[in-house]
Amino acid sequence: MCGIMTDIVVLASGGGTDFQSIIDAVESGDIDGNISLLISNNPDPYCLMRARKHDIPYKIIDHRGKSRKEHEKELVEEIGLKDPDLIVLAGYMRILTDDFVDRYYGRMINIHPALLPLFGGPGFYGEHVHKAVLDSGMKVSGCSVHFVTNEVDMGPIIAQRCVSVFHDDTVESLSQRVLAEEHKLLPAVIGAFARGRVHLENGKAWLE
Amino acid sequence: MCGIMTDIVVLASGGGTDFQSIIDAVESGDIDGNISLLISNNPDPYCLMRARKHDIPYKIIDHRGKSRKEHEKELVEEIGLKDPDLIVLAGYMRILTDDFVDRYYGRMINIHPALLPLFGGPGFYGEHVHKAVLDSGMKVSGCSVHFVTNEVDMGPIIAQRCVSVFHDDTVESLSQRVLAEEHKLLPAVIGAFARGRVHLENGKAWLE
Repeated sequence: MCGIMTDIVVLASGGGTDFQSIIDAVESGDIDGNISLLISNNPDPYCLMRARKHDIPYKIIDHRGKSRKEHEKELVEEIGLKDPDLIVLAGYMRILTDDFVDRYYGRMINIHPALLPLFGGPGFYGEHVHKAVLDSGMKVSGCSVHFVTNEVDMGPIIAQRCVSVFHDDTVESLSQRVLAEEHKLLPAVIGAFARGRVHLENGKAWLE
Repeated sequence: MCGIMTDIVVLASGGGTDFQSIIDAVESGDIDGNISLLISNNPDPYCLMRARKHDIPYKIIDHRGKSRKEHEKELVEEIGLKDPDLIVLAGYMRILTDDFVDRYYGRMINIHPALLPLFGGPGFYGEHVHKAVLDSGMKVSGCSVHFVTNEVDMGPIIAQRCVSVFHDDTVESLSQRVLAEEHKLLPAVIGAFARGRVHLENGKAWLE
């Protein structure tokens, strides 16, 4: 990147602990980048507080009362003003249209709280993911960062981390254990991306 | 178990490195048990050499020229003579009939070189498993020990271990990495079983 910092736009809908992990890694220098904008579709999520606290520009683009296309038109306009190197979906709870996804293919990533392709897809969000893991009887779960494609949660996987699943786990205890790994994995992938060490070729992604 | 050693019958078809890991754990005392018999369906696999070397009784029950039922009748007779506490399928490459599986439900386990339910089932054996993992683009794989049920590879999972998958992995390099974890996982599960610490209830299994 020759000293030019990677410009990052983050989309989030909720509390934003994944967003916080990016902020921390930018501030510590682990990510050689700059968060130029946080966008939320939700008018009052905790992630906005985090943005304010760290002087990160933010924008609320409420999806309510708009068609998906109308909502995304606003998103695209707002993101276009920043022309970021990387868009990070960090707990962004809206499914994106093909147009949007195609426009940013190769520079939009998502984090998912399971070992994709397991427990991914339109029905798997929030606690549904961890409930399904517990029901499956699997003894490991984890998290995945992948490039976003038109198939929800099924784009090229960049990196994954595992956690153990214990017999007495609840959705809450498992989600906390996975979240702790998300907070390592997501900044690590973004840091690698900023150093030009994330590759995407013929539908396969990898970290150098 | 009150000092009464767990009696183990192992079924294997090939080189028997998983079998060797059980032998080692029995000899070191990590498994409080006794391998009373190795059965192979293959007249000349390397696992028989291992049995001879460690003075473990073995029996070749060749499946060729017999119906599945005829072959299993011989298996059942031979296993019945030992009345083992635990049957371990350690790289046993034959699919078992429902009768056989039902007879030993809760005391027959299998090891599979992937994170089940991923890459399991009738088509997934040997290098096909690792090929499928590499094709999937997943960045983790692993191994699973599960109770055997009528659905191939899909019985209650007792324990799993993860490994990383690297961009330059081949079927060979990945299988070796998984195998190293198999050699930890399988003796650990058998050791726990021998101490009464493997539980099975309502179709769910777990290690205490």
